[in-house]
Amino acid sequence: MKRIEVVQNILEANESIAAQNQRLLDKHRVFAINIMSAPGAGKTSLILQTIAKLKDRLRIGVIEGDVASTLDAEKVKDEAAAVIQITTRNMSESCSLIANMIDHALMSLPLEDIDLLLIENVGNLICPSEFVLGEHKRVVISSLPEGDDKPIKYPMIFADANAVIINKIDLLPHVDFDIPAFRRAVKELNPKPEFFEVSCKTGMGIEAWCSWLFDGVESNAQKVINEGG
Amino acid sequence: MKRIEVVQNILEANESIAAQNQRLLDKHRVFAINIMSAPGAGKTSLILQTIAKLKDRLRIGVIEGDVASTLDAEKVKDEAAAVIQITTRNMSESCSLIANMIDHALMSLPLEDIDLLLIENVGNLICPSEFVLGEHKRVVISSLPEGDDKPIKYPMIFADANAVIINKIDLLPHVDFDIPAFRRAVKELNPKPEFFEVSCKTGMGIEAWCSWLFDGVESNAQKVINEGG
Repeated sequence: MKRIEVVQNILEANESIAAQNQRLLDKHRVFAINIMSAPGAGKTSLILQTIAKLKDRLRIGVIEGDVASTLDAEKVKDEAAAVIQITTRNMSESCSLIANMIDHALMSLPLEDIDLLLIENVGNLICPSEFVLGEHKRVVISSLPEGDDKPIKYPMIFADANAVIINKIDLLPHVDFDIPAFRRAVKELNPKPEFFEVSCKTGMGIEAWCSWLFDGVESNAQKVINEGG
Repeated sequence: MKRIEVVQNILEANESIAAQNQRLLDKHRVFAINIMSAPGAGKTSLILQTIAKLKDRLRIGVIEGDVASTLDAEKVKDEAAAVIQITTRNMSESCSLIANMIDHALMSLPLEDIDLLLIENVGNLICPSEFVLGEHKRVVISSLPEGDDKPIKYPMIFADANAVIINKIDLLPHVDFDIPAFRRAVKELNPKPEFFEVSCKTGMGIEAWCSWLFDGVESNAQKVINEGG
């Protein structure tokens, strides 16, 4: 019982800190995206492609979440307006970013100089589904070599995604992946997500994804203005 | 502090149950393997290939760990001597199998009719590294499309692996993956693992992996006999 109570307390505290984070982001008109996927599905590659496509139109900040190493932050640092690395290597918090880590990172970011904040979560299809961070949209990447059964096997992370990106579409001739079956499985969990089929290797499909992001930045800024922010 | 104590208690209780599990397995001369990987790296495919290759020489049982669904157990059930599905969908325990779940599963398995028990863990490179189950050997699968940086980014799971399987070797012409760099990164964390390069699609490399498993079954049985078990 004690254990269940502690878990409950952690989740409640997390939601409260996430709400604070979102207020701070809105105050500075920063639109934040939580990018989640299995290890190696292409989160960092998507971030690099996104910055390349949007950097002339938006000022982009990045928070890199990793269990260990600063590899991803190093890849991104010359491209983004600002990058913060969070290393979670520590048993009780290591399987996901949590709102408290983002709270600390936001203090170190020049929020007044950022329009879009891309948060790369830890590579994991389970834990990140439990912890909101204060983001405006939640994005899940599935890559073709992982197989089309991931929504059935890891339903929680797909159930509240705002967008689902099908990456490594260039590998379609070489792997078994039924795209319509994958989309149907996601829609049974969640009717709302936008789907994007992309290859972060060739750049295919990145344009449509970036248009969706750009629209999100604009409509969130307008919403904040309308609410007197 | 309360939270850290609880986590500590969970890990200690887990180790004690895992030790019990191993005693029970040894009593029945069952050699158990904990198979861990990211989602979609090929755990179920490896199990199917292993059974196909070894079923005339060994009686093989399977424990399938999943967050949700019985997809994998259904794929395996006609091939294995016995299959148990564990579905972990439940916040506080969902990101890994734990020893207590295996304890329950062992009660339902005909241990006297099993030589080799393949335990498919939940698809996750983080949580399973914290929880021993009572297994004799720990095996990590990395697949080429995930990229060769996984040992650097998820070091814990590689640090105590007895074998590392590099799967989807058939995709080598289509993805960037530096096999020697990957092996070096693993060896910096852990000098001991055996490496196997396989394709569960074509069957390449499965022979060597199965020889290693077969030798493990034989030498574990001999060890138990020598110890008077």
